[in-house]
Amino acid sequence: MSQALAKEPAEHKWVYRFGAGGADGSADMKELLGGKGANLAEMSSLGLPVPPGFTITTEVCSAYYDLGRNLPEGLDMQVQAAIEEVGRMVGAKFGDKENPLLVSVRSGAPDSMPGMMDTVLNLGLNDETVEGLAIRASDKRFAYDSYRRFIQMYADVCLGVEHHLFEDILQTYKNECKLANDTDLTADDWLSIIDQFKDCVQQELGKPFPQDIHEQLWGAIGAVFGSWQNARAVTYRRLHDIPAHWGTAVNVQAMVFGNLGDSSATGVAFTRNPATGEKRLYGEFLLNAQGEDVVAGTRTPQNLTEDARKEAGDTAPSLEALMPESFAEFQAICNQLEQRYKDMQDIEFTIQDGKLWMLQTRGGKRTTEAALKIAVDLAEEGVISEAEAVQRINPAQLDQLLHPTLDPDAERDVIASGLPASPGAASGEIVFNSDEAETLKEEGRTVILVRVETSPEDIHGMHAAAGILTSRGGMTSHAAVVARGMGRPCVSGAGSLRIDYKDQTLSVGSLRLEKGDIITIDGTTGQIIRGEVKMRQPKLSGDFAKLMSWADAARVLKVRTNADTAADARIAREFGAEGIGLCRTEHMFFDEDRILAVRQMILATDEDGRREALDKLLPMQRGDFEALFKEMSGLPVTIRLLDPPLHEFLPHTEAEIATVAEAMKVPVKTLYNRVQELKEFNPMLGHRGCRLAISYPEITEMQARAILEAAVSASKASGAAVEPEIMIPLIVGRPEFDFLAARIRKSAEAVEQETGTRIAYTIGTMIELPRACLRAGEIAQSAEFFSFGTNDLTQTGLGISRDDAGSFLTEYIQKGLLDSDPFISIDEEGVGELVKIGVERGRAQNSSLKLGICGEHGGDPKSVAFCHRIALDYVSCSPYRVPVARLAAAQAALSDQDGTGKRET
Amino acid sequence: MSQALAKEPAEHKWVYRFGAGGADGSADMKELLGGKGANLAEMSSLGLPVPPGFTITTEVCSAYYDLGRNLPEGLDMQVQAAIEEVGRMVGAKFGDKENPLLVSVRSGAPDSMPGMMDTVLNLGLNDETVEGLAIRASDKRFAYDSYRRFIQMYADVCLGVEHHLFEDILQTYKNECKLANDTDLTADDWLSIIDQFKDCVQQELGKPFPQDIHEQLWGAIGAVFGSWQNARAVTYRRLHDIPAHWGTAVNVQAMVFGNLGDSSATGVAFTRNPATGEKRLYGEFLLNAQGEDVVAGTRTPQNLTEDARKEAGDTAPSLEALMPESFAEFQAICNQLEQRYKDMQDIEFTIQDGKLWMLQTRGGKRTTEAALKIAVDLAEEGVISEAEAVQRINPAQLDQLLHPTLDPDAERDVIASGLPASPGAASGEIVFNSDEAETLKEEGRTVILVRVETSPEDIHGMHAAAGILTSRGGMTSHAAVVARGMGRPCVSGAGSLRIDYKDQTLSVGSLRLEKGDIITIDGTTGQIIRGEVKMRQPKLSGDFAKLMSWADAARVLKVRTNADTAADARIAREFGAEGIGLCRTEHMFFDEDRILAVRQMILATDEDGRREALDKLLPMQRGDFEALFKEMSGLPVTIRLLDPPLHEFLPHTEAEIATVAEAMKVPVKTLYNRVQELKEFNPMLGHRGCRLAISYPEITEMQARAILEAAVSASKASGAAVEPEIMIPLIVGRPEFDFLAARIRKSAEAVEQETGTRIAYTIGTMIELPRACLRAGEIAQSAEFFSFGTNDLTQTGLGISRDDAGSFLTEYIQKGLLDSDPFISIDEEGVGELVKIGVERGRAQNSSLKLGICGEHGGDPKSVAFCHRIALDYVSCSPYRVPVARLAAAQAALSDQDGTGKRET
Repeated sequence: MSQALAKEPAEHKWVYRFGAGGADGSADMKELLGGKGANLAEMSSLGLPVPPGFTITTEVCSAYYDLGRNLPEGLDMQVQAAIEEVGRMVGAKFGDKENPLLVSVRSGAPDSMPGMMDTVLNLGLNDETVEGLAIRASDKRFAYDSYRRFIQMYADVCLGVEHHLFEDILQTYKNECKLANDTDLTADDWLSIIDQFKDCVQQELGKPFPQDIHEQLWGAIGAVFGSWQNARAVTYRRLHDIPAHWGTAVNVQAMVFGNLGDSSATGVAFTRNPATGEKRLYGEFLLNAQGEDVVAGTRTPQNLTEDARKEAGDTAPSLEALMPESFAEFQAICNQLEQRYKDMQDIEFTIQDGKLWMLQTRGGKRTTEAALKIAVDLAEEGVISEAEAVQRINPAQLDQLLHPTLDPDAERDVIASGLPASPGAASGEIVFNSDEAETLKEEGRTVILVRVETSPEDIHGMHAAAGILTSRGGMTSHAAVVARGMGRPCVSGAGSLRIDYKDQTLSVGSLRLEKGDIITIDGTTGQIIRGEVKMRQPKLSGDFAKLMSWADAARVLKVRTNADTAADARIAREFGAEGIGLCRTEHMFFDEDRILAVRQMILATDEDGRREALDKLLPMQRGDFEALFKEMSGLPVTIRLLDPPLHEFLPHTEAEIATVAEAMKVPVKTLYNRVQELKEFNPMLGHRGCRLAISYPEITEMQARAILEAAVSASKASGAAVEPEIMIPLIVGRPEFDFLAARIRKSAEAVEQETGTRIAYTIGTMIELPRACLRAGEIAQSAEFFSFGTNDLTQTGLGISRDDAGSFLTEYIQKGLLDSDPFISIDEEGVGELVKIGVERGRAQNSSLKLGICGEHGGDPKSVAFCHRIALDYVSCSPYRVPVARLAAAQAALSDQDGTGKRET
Repeated sequence: MSQALAKEPAEHKWVYRFGAGGADGSADMKELLGGKGANLAEMSSLGLPVPPGFTITTEVCSAYYDLGRNLPEGLDMQVQAAIEEVGRMVGAKFGDKENPLLVSVRSGAPDSMPGMMDTVLNLGLNDETVEGLAIRASDKRFAYDSYRRFIQMYADVCLGVEHHLFEDILQTYKNECKLANDTDLTADDWLSIIDQFKDCVQQELGKPFPQDIHEQLWGAIGAVFGSWQNARAVTYRRLHDIPAHWGTAVNVQAMVFGNLGDSSATGVAFTRNPATGEKRLYGEFLLNAQGEDVVAGTRTPQNLTEDARKEAGDTAPSLEALMPESFAEFQAICNQLEQRYKDMQDIEFTIQDGKLWMLQTRGGKRTTEAALKIAVDLAEEGVISEAEAVQRINPAQLDQLLHPTLDPDAERDVIASGLPASPGAASGEIVFNSDEAETLKEEGRTVILVRVETSPEDIHGMHAAAGILTSRGGMTSHAAVVARGMGRPCVSGAGSLRIDYKDQTLSVGSLRLEKGDIITIDGTTGQIIRGEVKMRQPKLSGDFAKLMSWADAARVLKVRTNADTAADARIAREFGAEGIGLCRTEHMFFDEDRILAVRQMILATDEDGRREALDKLLPMQRGDFEALFKEMSGLPVTIRLLDPPLHEFLPHTEAEIATVAEAMKVPVKTLYNRVQELKEFNPMLGHRGCRLAISYPEITEMQARAILEAAVSASKASGAAVEPEIMIPLIVGRPEFDFLAARIRKSAEAVEQETGTRIAYTIGTMIELPRACLRAGEIAQSAEFFSFGTNDLTQTGLGISRDDAGSFLTEYIQKGLLDSDPFISIDEEGVGELVKIGVERGRAQNSSLKLGICGEHGGDPKSVAFCHRIALDYVSCSPYRVPVARLAAAQAALSDQDGTGKRET
């Protein structure tokens, strides 16, 4: 805390002051002071030239809402004292007619929310003080211009008078006086505009523009706190996962003016290039201007450095050339701040009459490529450690690198939006069914598969398509999950689309697209765009590889992949997967050449009939597993036994039933009846998972045999050990496990006897029902591994069907009833506790129990961190998320108190 | 332990001996010795005349199965020693040619399973020993008859030779020799039969009938243990909820013979009348007979007592008259045993040559009426306490008293069976739809509503029907739950029925019944019977009332009812309900005069439209609640806000949609689209419960207003306090609760201001999702009561949809994968733990939290006991189960260690 500042009495401290080489706060007080406030305090303490001011804390924001949008008692005294001190520091006085102190009032949340909340500049001006300002600045035009700007801004932000009303007045005036630019207006012109502005306020509100500068100040403070809950800010927080309870701080700071003539300027800078990461000062400025002019874009900013000017071929001089002393001071400060914050900074500054003032510094936003380069460079410069570099990259951002993305500079004719279900972008011809998608693909054409929703029978079409678009289904709908697994971009649940299969059209409002029309989908933003958009292909640069190697050195959790095919397995292995955590065998059942045998099995009326059909499937499944084992040679492969309800494999529409019946040579009625018989009210809670295997153990026997025969032949072929882990799905307790494990062992013994080869397989289970978590101790006495199926555990734990959640889940998150979508980040308080109970009880009974997670959460950074904390052995995720999980796992390990990966359990 | 018996060495004791006034065991060792063995030991210790023998424990049974149907080591030595001792006691020797010891080998499980397992008599006979027996008994015919009986029984039970083969031989022989009765056969005839029997065994098995008496003994022991898992026994255990792991004991006992002439006899007796409970010795006997002759029914048994003989008008003399000394001894023993066991006994005895032998005593099976009378009489006689009397009645049995039942003596033409979904019986005309059921009811006819399954739109039809029959759905299907709530008999899930709505027929195999044909359903057994069957009406006798008053004095748990209508509430109150624990408001929405307004609400495109429809519903709901509050005056009433998904209220078939669209004056397409829009993949996990209220808070506001306005007017009308408890369904955490509670309070404040009356209402929630149990601490900070909705908690905790469970749940229970149907008795290990967690965390945060349960489990005795142990405040169940719950709650309290109701939590 600064010695220069007078101490407040011992009441609750709402206000933190800064300026004149000291401050009450510091950079590590972001939660309390917001990012802007904390950094202003820090810069002030570092002795940098910061206009003095004070920060009203985020606690006041919470109090403001707790009190029904009223400010807490005692705040006024503290603000009054602080503003007096600011006046003393700059040698002016708030409201003084001759030497008025002007202030800016700005928001500042703990996490930067640029442009989301309100700002008021030049506060403290009224009809009297403006005259004082004119005299002090020896510039009437400047003073009146400042006043009209203030009226306009304050009326808009604090009084709710619409901005365009003032623009209209100004434009009319200019038209009447035949003036082209604002700079053509004289002091008297502005005076006349000021009168009209004030009249406008009077007319709109029925009362005059406030002349009381204290009323102005409190109006602005209230407006900033109020803007925390404006629609823009609420949406931004939801998209960026910022909790509403954080609140914003309010920064009140003495104004400095970059518009006091040609020895004044204002600008912004990045200490490194935010697009590429290159280590060069990067930025721009305007002479004789205020910050808002830079934003308005009416004048072209100039380069900061000579190098940049030359490169750009600009003729307007650089700051370096124009004001070499200020530039040198600024450059030194930039270096100092980068060293202090150990990161690339985004800086705002103003030069008033030749004197440099620092208005803001913060960690700069950057592209993922830049983030990687900066982190690796800083580590190699010795500014940060390799571990810190690893912690600098947001794992979610890696997605940008792993998929093609739309060129940010390209035009986009956005026709609708859906959920960003699987990242990356794709353009192609619209096609409405999977068979056609496949046919067109074979003809060498690129298609986007457009469906109301997808089902397992669309797998081949999804594979053939460059991207998938659905009008129904959430982030974890079939389309979304499968697309992520395949690495296909997907936009799901675009509810404003009307898809008409009969007419083969896709409509939005009055726009109607037909089969063959080109669209582009952006799975990273959820946008649906008409026509083709230029793409950028992913580059996995040397920096990426280097950072990932540091990450791998740091992490404790293993990262596996969810993969059902050899092709997926290969991609995942290239991305660093250390085994397969989930192979869903049912996806193998849908291939055209085997679905007939699958249906025959389902239609069989007795065990013999089923066995006959299963005998046909056996060699196919064995082939699938062999291919997988070869790809994953030397690594563990977890194979889940058949899981979905049988009706998923049967056709549903009458036409489909007729076709299939003919192909299978069974009466339509038989097939129809079986479909009806298998229909369920709640298939999610129905006859599936191990329940199928318990009804028809011969399915399990066939699958176990296929796995073990494949393991024998794969290990003979490669010479490397194959580690099959056979996983029993959807158990509620140990008896089901024991019942099926006995049958698996019997098959394994038979294979061993027949082949003379012993495979070191293990048998484990998916823990995906609340009861299984509770009974984990008992189950662990039999099982060799657990894989937490957190998708289903979320569905049952919260009683929310992921396919039906669309109608209310978004609202839940918007209303703050859930912190975030529990299908994206694990619900730690609910589902997470169930998992923890499962881990604790399981390990207590079986210390060698292997523990992993294979739900969608395995690729979500926040959930990966949770998995680390509860000491799982591995996470498993879709191939394209493997690098994300590796990085997230490393960060989780590095965030441990002692940094060694010692964990909660 | 008896002094008379030699001690075994210190190895594991597999064999417990009894006889000669002593025994190793006693009556309280039923688990180890089985019921029969424990009681033989007890009688022996009491000095009663018991033929000596020994019991091989139930532990051996477990070992037998653990060892893959092999007997454990060391057993043979213990059996050998025991059988030698038995021989010494009776002065004979096992296998001795001159003086052979014969034994019976019988099963004896901890819980009696009459007729379910195997028995072998006269064991120890072979071609040599039979001659010794003939000489000792001075009766060749007796000896050969015994031998042929033995061959027949042993070959059937232990060797698997079918019984009828022997019957055929005997019949052929009698035909050839022109002999009418078995008694006409001479010793030589039997000798010839014996040869043929032995040939038959040789022919069937390819080896001779075993002459080695030790082989015979071990064969019989193995057969008895093996019969524990025969299909009959497995089914019996499932029906009677007997765990498979208990196992059976085997009793080996010296034979005594009631067929040694006219000074011998055999008989059975109850110490009181098992049909009425009257305190009089009740039973029958046969002179010169073995036990199996009584069972065979070829001779008419005689009365035991003179009184009974006179009452029956029989001429055959009573035992009292024929053998006064033996009778007197027997009567004294009966009294002694009743005093010793403090209960009515079911006794088997044999008199051999004038000497009385006791073969078995056990608690006698009895009708519910008898059980009540006996318990009350014993208490009033001072034999047992009132508390003990309360513990004597199986609460589940009370059902028999509360519903009409089929006359057990009436003929039944059973055509099919389903699940005993709601007790009681009913006869009536078949009707296939609910509207017709109602119409016919109005015409004064009695109908049985027959549906594939029922839906909420069938409520009026179910109400109009005397009974409900469905071909689909389990014990907790809609039909079952609603029928139990209404007290209507119901048979559900009768899968062998084919119901054709179009033809209006019901078929089973080749039998075809039409609309209007009479059937009878027995909801207590699940039988479906053609034609009408004679009924017995329930009598709630003075004994019932007396016992229930003792129960009420003992219990700690309150008992409420689930009731949605004033009529239900009235019945429940008569049955002793102490409030309403669950009023499902949605049932009120289905009435014909309001469904239109409900649909209008659902079809509304905005809040105004919804409010308009809700305004129409308000007075109707208020009226419903007023009626409920009046019925329940002075007692608490819990009202759950709207729960089911909206699509339940819309029509579904195209024809229905068309009709409704016309009535509502909306286009068919609009209605059809809305139905499609509201369709869900898993409605159980969809947009329902509080999720509806969060989307459309105006529904909650209307319901809260209706409740409070009704409370005001009901309390004004009656002067008594009304205690509405408003219950929010299906929350996952506190935020949803707070969100809706705020709206309820707002409505309440408005009603208070408008009416000037303050109602002391409370707001609580249904805890019915696993996450809610885990977050109970947090929720309890806001909620005033929890009601555990264990139906949904079972569905989500186990991931089992109760509507779809039919296809696998039965198999699960049969295969021992679950102990019992978790929708009938709460799954204590899983769902029970969730409830316990909810109770503990809730109470820890809010010590005044009121806790209850309102799932179907609230009326299940085992579950009620669980609720008592975890210290809930009340259970709530359907009206007809209220007495069951009262009794179960009393028994749970009395089973507490200290008897004062101190509980686990």
